[in-house]
Amino acid sequence: MKIPISNTASKMYKWVEDLFPINRSLTGPGVRETLQYLQKIVPELTIQEVPTGTNVFDWTVPEEWSVHEAYIQDEDGEKIVDFDDHNLHLVGYSEPVDEWMTLEDLENHLYTLPDQPDAIPYVTSYYKRRWGFCMTQNQKDSLRSGKYHVYIDSQLKSGVLNYGEIILPGQTEKEILLSTYICHPSMANNELSGPAVTTALAKWLTKLENRKYTYRIVYVPETIGAITYISKHIDQLKKNVIAGYQITCVGDERNYSFLSSRYGNTLADRVAKHVLKHAVDNYKEYSFLERGSDERQYCSPGIDLPVASIMRSKYGEYSEYHTSLDNLDLVTQKGLEGAYEVYKKVIEAIENNCTPKVNVYCEPQLGKRGLYPDVSKKDSATEVRLLTNFIAYADGKNDLFEIAEILDVPIWNLYNILFNLIGEGLMQCNN
Amino acid sequence: MKIPISNTASKMYKWVEDLFPINRSLTGPGVRETLQYLQKIVPELTIQEVPTGTNVFDWTVPEEWSVHEAYIQDEDGEKIVDFDDHNLHLVGYSEPVDEWMTLEDLENHLYTLPDQPDAIPYVTSYYKRRWGFCMTQNQKDSLRSGKYHVYIDSQLKSGVLNYGEIILPGQTEKEILLSTYICHPSMANNELSGPAVTTALAKWLTKLENRKYTYRIVYVPETIGAITYISKHIDQLKKNVIAGYQITCVGDERNYSFLSSRYGNTLADRVAKHVLKHAVDNYKEYSFLERGSDERQYCSPGIDLPVASIMRSKYGEYSEYHTSLDNLDLVTQKGLEGAYEVYKKVIEAIENNCTPKVNVYCEPQLGKRGLYPDVSKKDSATEVRLLTNFIAYADGKNDLFEIAEILDVPIWNLYNILFNLIGEGLMQCNN
Amino acid sequence: MKIPISNTASKMYKWVEDLFPINRSLTGPGVRETLQYLQKIVPELTIQEVPTGTNVFDWTVPEEWSVHEAYIQDEDGEKIVDFDDHNLHLVGYSEPVDEWMTLEDLENHLYTLPDQPDAIPYVTSYYKRRWGFCMTQNQKDSLRSGKYHVYIDSQLKSGVLNYGEIILPGQTEKEILLSTYICHPSMANNELSGPAVTTALAKWLTKLENRKYTYRIVYVPETIGAITYISKHIDQLKKNVIAGYQITCVGDERNYSFLSSRYGNTLADRVAKHVLKHAVDNYKEYSFLERGSDERQYCSPGIDLPVASIMRSKYGEYSEYHTSLDNLDLVTQKGLEGAYEVYKKVIEAIENNCTPKVNVYCEPQLGKRGLYPDVSKKDSATEVRLLTNFIAYADGKNDLFEIAEILDVPIWNLYNILFNLIGEGLMQCNN
Repeated sequence: MKIPISNTASKMYKWVEDLFPINRSLTGPGVRETLQYLQKIVPELTIQEVPTGTNVFDWTVPEEWSVHEAYIQDEDGEKIVDFDDHNLHLVGYSEPVDEWMTLEDLENHLYTLPDQPDAIPYVTSYYKRRWGFCMTQNQKDSLRSGKYHVYIDSQLKSGVLNYGEIILPGQTEKEILLSTYICHPSMANNELSGPAVTTALAKWLTKLENRKYTYRIVYVPETIGAITYISKHIDQLKKNVIAGYQITCVGDERNYSFLSSRYGNTLADRVAKHVLKHAVDNYKEYSFLERGSDERQYCSPGIDLPVASIMRSKYGEYSEYHTSLDNLDLVTQKGLEGAYEVYKKVIEAIENNCTPKVNVYCEPQLGKRGLYPDVSKKDSATEVRLLTNFIAYADGKNDLFEIAEILDVPIWNLYNILFNLIGEGLMQCNN
Repeated sequence: MKIPISNTASKMYKWVEDLFPINRSLTGPGVRETLQYLQKIVPELTIQEVPTGTNVFDWTVPEEWSVHEAYIQDEDGEKIVDFDDHNLHLVGYSEPVDEWMTLEDLENHLYTLPDQPDAIPYVTSYYKRRWGFCMTQNQKDSLRSGKYHVYIDSQLKSGVLNYGEIILPGQTEKEILLSTYICHPSMANNELSGPAVTTALAKWLTKLENRKYTYRIVYVPETIGAITYISKHIDQLKKNVIAGYQITCVGDERNYSFLSSRYGNTLADRVAKHVLKHAVDNYKEYSFLERGSDERQYCSPGIDLPVASIMRSKYGEYSEYHTSLDNLDLVTQKGLEGAYEVYKKVIEAIENNCTPKVNVYCEPQLGKRGLYPDVSKKDSATEVRLLTNFIAYADGKNDLFEIAEILDVPIWNLYNILFNLIGEGLMQCNN
Repeated sequence: MKIPISNTASKMYKWVEDLFPINRSLTGPGVRETLQYLQKIVPELTIQEVPTGTNVFDWTVPEEWSVHEAYIQDEDGEKIVDFDDHNLHLVGYSEPVDEWMTLEDLENHLYTLPDQPDAIPYVTSYYKRRWGFCMTQNQKDSLRSGKYHVYIDSQLKSGVLNYGEIILPGQTEKEILLSTYICHPSMANNELSGPAVTTALAKWLTKLENRKYTYRIVYVPETIGAITYISKHIDQLKKNVIAGYQITCVGDERNYSFLSSRYGNTLADRVAKHVLKHAVDNYKEYSFLERGSDERQYCSPGIDLPVASIMRSKYGEYSEYHTSLDNLDLVTQKGLEGAYEVYKKVIEAIENNCTPKVNVYCEPQLGKRGLYPDVSKKDSATEVRLLTNFIAYADGKNDLFEIAEILDVPIWNLYNILFNLIGEGLMQCNN
């Protein structure tokens, strides 16, 4: 699928750039700032909050974390590491500290990636109180022994967990769920590609005429946010969602990836695999055993939502993942747009899907309707083969996806054929 | 399967030879002449007629077409193309014309096959009024510019559509359907091999003792004839047919072919594939997407008959198809007989099929019945393996086909075993 | 699976040695002596008897056969073949004879293996009265012409068929069946490895705490004994047996083999294949078409027990089978122990199997229970993957086997995980 760089592509990239510097975490001002930015793009987005301490299934909504300043000074007063330079320098959820210590003691609190000596790792400690700094291995190797002043002016206090929600009603209550996350500091593919593509899809969906399905689009902090969201909407979700996608890692230009739902047999899986098969050159398929994002919650036992994931380079599978190298060079306009177009095809396919049934016995006479060549020559049988094959399997038992699979063609090649046959009064198509 | 040329083989070839010159089309005198010839061979054949203009599902029975004379004369009065020489020269259903025209104008009405410069193509225009001539590319290339006299004395008028039907009652109302077509002018594999093999099978079936099933054997013009036939017998067909075959292209000596029913899972499919697997060296399997004959109607949505097709070289897949090269050299006695024997094996298998059930617990004592070697030596276990394996799966859940598949043997290897076990009172076999 | 030679291994080998010389047959003193020996090892074993002439399904319990003396003397009075030297020398169930005859006449009663000139074959004639001697081809080739004195002092008289039975009650009536046979004279892999491994398993089971299942362990003469046993216990067997194994040919060190039940889809099949896949380097899978022991009866139509077979070298598939070469060199301590350990793993797996169900929605918070690393680093996701994958499929729909198959790990890797999760109150596991 060759796609010229469009207006949408440049907008998505701009959103990623704008949101990149914000220090997001599970909770706190970074999440709110991010949601407010997106709300300006899609005013239908509402920002919700759930108080610290709320029990959500087996979990509890955590305190809010905010950072005012954080650095390490050497004996000369020089800041050798500064949160202001890169918010990955600080271990997520670090508690406050103001202390002088030897290099030896300090090293217990330093995190590096020896195999990627130029990368700052991304480290968090959500559920145990500690503090720490992340830096490149090269920088750590250059530290001289001596005393260091460690200063973290952070706060952990009761507050709220925020998430964003867009509901776009359709002709039925049945829903398509799109979910992305907003809890990672400055990283581009994982995470900002997700909110950018999701927001572009939301904008497109607001303008989609005659939406058949209702769209539920959520921006949550990963894991705790998804669990919180599910706990508050479990009945609607279980009743209405017919397909959903976890949108993450959709911004680089490398291969496409597919991660299935728990049993890999839902509508979301079928559609995603069908679209990828026909729309991109190749893609890598991952089983649910290799999951790692909020499908972990959506597809958990008893929740059982039909949620799969189409990605470019999957989290955990590319070297820049969870480091400072996952930056604005890795994500591109072309990369974002490829994923956006695939997801559009997925949504269009679900919207257009129905179960056609021809309403005459035996083959219809296509000739009298101008649908069949009127001279029978040696090759004429093949000219109308797609049409007659479509009719042969439009028996009320197969939906468009199943017919497309039997005929081994993209579902979008069938939209016009179906439209024409309905127009001729030869066919109905039921949901 | 090596088959010596038999009496049946030479008869079938003779019928093809005799019927070859007749100018068959969808309707008209050629069809009637053909059916009358076959009726002399199998007096059980009745010739039916349905008036022009009758509505049959989405179609209408067309007018009768007949040709008295048709040729193109050059300025010297010489007939450069004459329907009397080869009835493929005239486009099927050509309307009358009597006109002088330039070569340039004439060329709009000439059909050739540039890639097969020695072959006259077979062209028809059933559902749009036009006229035309077919010739070899070599002949067309030799035409000099000038004026040509085009003369077609044909007639399109209200009449009837004819078809032939043989009903051979059996012990049950359940039916085996054999269908072939009789609407193509002088071509041998597609089409006369079909009526020849079908007629030989009909003759054999009239003499088959204790026929379990009723046989419905039909000779129809392709497409419109099958649709007409189905429209008049839809209730009986849907109620009674347990397996059926479209018999066409069964006269050459090349590979065998199999074309499945719509979902490929009917008794007709199972039996055909089983027989082909065990009776011929190899065969090519085609999906229903590659269909092209009256299974298009029999297997259409709502009709849903279990109809498959065993062929030699499939229509559309051999170079002589729908040209003057599909002649009496392509079809041979040996080719016809091979297909005839395969279809006989298919019918015998369906007739003999039943669901056996052993009526003792544990293995029967075969020794006291003389069915087991009475000295146990190193190899004796294998000697009776087929027998004991048959008994092991004769549990009332598998029919003979399923047992043959489990044991990976031809079903006909089981007929005697079953007969002996029933004789010993060890087994019953229910339909 | 590397297993040091254990106490159990040396005991099993000792039992094989002790039982080797006994002249077992379908009935008679050899069977009783064998069962009495085993009863001393497992006092729970009871010895049962069924009178000659009892009808068992399609069969009749045969007379007892016993041999006092049997030999062939040459004209010099020298015993050239003597039953005292090797009990394979006499054809099983030979009738009495005391006669002088020429070599020519004698040869009609001699059995050899021309392809294995050093091996005495094993031959029986259970169901037709005859007599005969078996010898090596080399010995037969050395026989001079002349007169020979054939003397067989055997007896066929009304008596009983004996079998052994051990019932070890468990918490439920549901049963695991272990069956082996005790009707072959001096052969080691087929047959004594079977009773030896079965007896070691029985000893282990008597000490297994909190047995969930009841164990039914039977020692029967092959075929007639199994049929007799089934005929007397058909109702309990059909009601209670959830898995069973025919234990035979489990003493050599060559490959493992698996023979499936009739349709290959029972719990016994699933467990055996799972254990073999994960516990041994490789194994050969045989279909039920290649069966040859008492699964022939247990799996017969209408009996339908879930009985499969794990073997080392399968009967009929190794050159020493049913000859004097199947001796105490072929069977080893290591060979016996390998099979014993595999069967223990099978039984442990069935005992431990249950259907786990997580009892919180979404992922449980493992961190607060010390089951999850509290710092999130690049690789930490993979560390707990087995645990979270287990939970994801512990949805009350899959038993431990199914989860192990989905996760592609041995079931025994899941026992502790399940134990811990139950301990944390996060899971239940139902049978």
